[in-house]
Amino acid sequence: MRRGSNLPAVGTYNQTLVLDLIRRSPDGISRIELAARTGLSAQTLSNVARRLVAEGWVREGTPIVTGPGKPRTPLQLDPTARCAVGIHLDPAVETVVVVDLLGEVVAQTERTPRPDATREQILGDLVGTVESLLAEGGRSRASVLGIGVAAPGPLDADAGVLFEPPLLPPVWHDLALGPLLREATGLPTTVEKDVVAAMVGELWRDAAQELQDSIFVYYGAGVGAGLAVDGAPIRGRTGNAGDVAHLVVEPGGPACGCGQRGCLGAAIAPERLLVDGGVIDGSEPVAAPALRERLRELAARARGGDERAASAVRRAGSSLARAVVQINNLLDADVVVVGGPLWKLLSTTAGPALSDAVAASTETATVRGIRVLESGLTTDAAAVGAACLVLDAAMTARPTDLMIAGAPD
Amino acid sequence: MRRGSNLPAVGTYNQTLVLDLIRRSPDGISRIELAARTGLSAQTLSNVARRLVAEGWVREGTPIVTGPGKPRTPLQLDPTARCAVGIHLDPAVETVVVVDLLGEVVAQTERTPRPDATREQILGDLVGTVESLLAEGGRSRASVLGIGVAAPGPLDADAGVLFEPPLLPPVWHDLALGPLLREATGLPTTVEKDVVAAMVGELWRDAAQELQDSIFVYYGAGVGAGLAVDGAPIRGRTGNAGDVAHLVVEPGGPACGCGQRGCLGAAIAPERLLVDGGVIDGSEPVAAPALRERLRELAARARGGDERAASAVRRAGSSLARAVVQINNLLDADVVVVGGPLWKLLSTTAGPALSDAVAASTETATVRGIRVLESGLTTDAAAVGAACLVLDAAMTARPTDLMIAGAPD
Repeated sequence: MRRGSNLPAVGTYNQTLVLDLIRRSPDGISRIELAARTGLSAQTLSNVARRLVAEGWVREGTPIVTGPGKPRTPLQLDPTARCAVGIHLDPAVETVVVVDLLGEVVAQTERTPRPDATREQILGDLVGTVESLLAEGGRSRASVLGIGVAAPGPLDADAGVLFEPPLLPPVWHDLALGPLLREATGLPTTVEKDVVAAMVGELWRDAAQELQDSIFVYYGAGVGAGLAVDGAPIRGRTGNAGDVAHLVVEPGGPACGCGQRGCLGAAIAPERLLVDGGVIDGSEPVAAPALRERLRELAARARGGDERAASAVRRAGSSLARAVVQINNLLDADVVVVGGPLWKLLSTTAGPALSDAVAASTETATVRGIRVLESGLTTDAAAVGAACLVLDAAMTARPTDLMIAGAPD
Repeated sequence: MRRGSNLPAVGTYNQTLVLDLIRRSPDGISRIELAARTGLSAQTLSNVARRLVAEGWVREGTPIVTGPGKPRTPLQLDPTARCAVGIHLDPAVETVVVVDLLGEVVAQTERTPRPDATREQILGDLVGTVESLLAEGGRSRASVLGIGVAAPGPLDADAGVLFEPPLLPPVWHDLALGPLLREATGLPTTVEKDVVAAMVGELWRDAAQELQDSIFVYYGAGVGAGLAVDGAPIRGRTGNAGDVAHLVVEPGGPACGCGQRGCLGAAIAPERLLVDGGVIDGSEPVAAPALRERLRELAARARGGDERAASAVRRAGSSLARAVVQINNLLDADVVVVGGPLWKLLSTTAGPALSDAVAASTETATVRGIRVLESGLTTDAAAVGAACLVLDAAMTARPTDLMIAGAPD
């Protein structure tokens, strides 16, 4: 239920809004420009700016003389004023990053999870990694806004609980990860599904605001989609939006665990690519860390002119294209971003196949066509996204912030 | 880009919010209750209520004595204070409705479009129908908030232009319907895709707010989905969200115009049901109005125990179920509402098939399961929805209203 609005709510909103505009202006922005952009009075802006400088978020830049009269002093974000921690849980690799206020990675580490660790050990490992990474990045405890965790679904994002994500080993199942990390570190902790986190990360770094209505296709250990409508991620009622594994992209294709044939998840499963590409014979399962090595080999063969390998990778690209068209038909978005660790490995060969198949699609309902972009992130998109969840919660001006706090009776 | 906020913006928002709460309270709501629900002060509420009464939206109910002290006077919406017109363009039938402020239909008419009419004639016909319907409903011109039009896509909702909707005859193609109707009637006119309008209609009438995150599957001349996230419809960048015709629901099924097999649109096309159900032999095309008669016959046979007819209708239900699961996997919504004119004809037989197939699905990624509801609308959902577009624009409190008007420079 919506609440009413009053002046204190307006004050908080305006301060966050001004901070938002300052962080999107790499060269700084003057009080006069801020007044024009926000519609706020010079007096209000002056007060807001004074508070932001006093709290350390913002610093005064070098005054610029552009003519007669008082020179303009640009306000600039101090990216080092605060930081955030991001953790991505993945079957093959756990990635932990520390980012500054611009979402730039200042420290990062990847670890292969211990196969037989207990819950106490995995939690202890995570907390230890966070502490040493903060030390490595030279960040004080007081400057940490919080920890974001990206995990495969299904999960209860509000409670911070993982259910039984099939992609993670049983030690993670039914784990209240958010509350436990909060208790162990004393830091605010947010848990989101990996693709939701990745979408938030893309939105955070999208200074040009091209991704306000967009679809982020994440191709990693699993495949999923992050969705943005009007600049906000779609989380779903339980935080599990973005499951696209059972979109049918290859009728008559491989059997899926759900009983159907040709589901996206089965069509682009890493093992299938490796068998079809001639890298493994499929007689034995491949463990998650070794899988990545084999995929690297597949990608190299495809780039090197091995037609069997290239054909398998191209088919993954065109399967993803069919999913992209179906999702975009539903949402009528502006743009599709493709990324994730597997995509990074395969994109040289799979990228053109995907773009060609999208362009050639006869099923596209959208009026403007579909623009396909590569994710600009070189680090793990979900880990950076997880850290951006924390930045986003602290630094994005939301109209809902304008409402009087407190639940109606 | 977000704008700042100030007191005048807050005043407008609070007034709309209070009106929203009053309209959702059929028995009226007192100023004290409104203060508790909104968090607004008694003084602010008193001012807002005075304005709403003065403008005629709201009336004072009978004072209720609940104990010692001043009796509470409930504020009630006057549903007759204003009205809105809704038009649904469909290949078989054009529906025009007038609704009161609660979205209840006070006058309606259906007409079969003239097959060989010119643009001037179809526009003249529409305007004439609107005028006579207002007269029939006893509504003054001054009380009409505006006209909403629901049309099949693709269209440009912002410009009010239909492109070349394959479901409408060429006379409608590339027509600036919104501006033309505005000019001819002098009334504000909004054009939206049929499924977006139907979703807005369901949201408007959802007093219990169960549909804040929901999917409305509309089965009429075509099939489409209306999507709601956090109480707002997803329109898409160009207003064409909700195209689900190419979701693959029946691998190996009938060929679709797009070149694939088993797309939802082809799988549940009316002609296919009629052929499979033994009502027609498929040797000749059936015109849109006759199609509805044949479908009525199919539905009657299915209900009457004709196994061939029943089987064809049940398969339509289970095909819709597969689409429902795929869409819900993407959005993680709470609830799915099924409606539209074809669904109304077939739901006795198709409804249980759909519910059973959703419950039995092994592809469901959502944590809470999927609740399936029947649309409560007995009149054409898209026509009522089109009228509710007008009500929604005038009477829903949006946090974005809190921002200072005007585009940034």
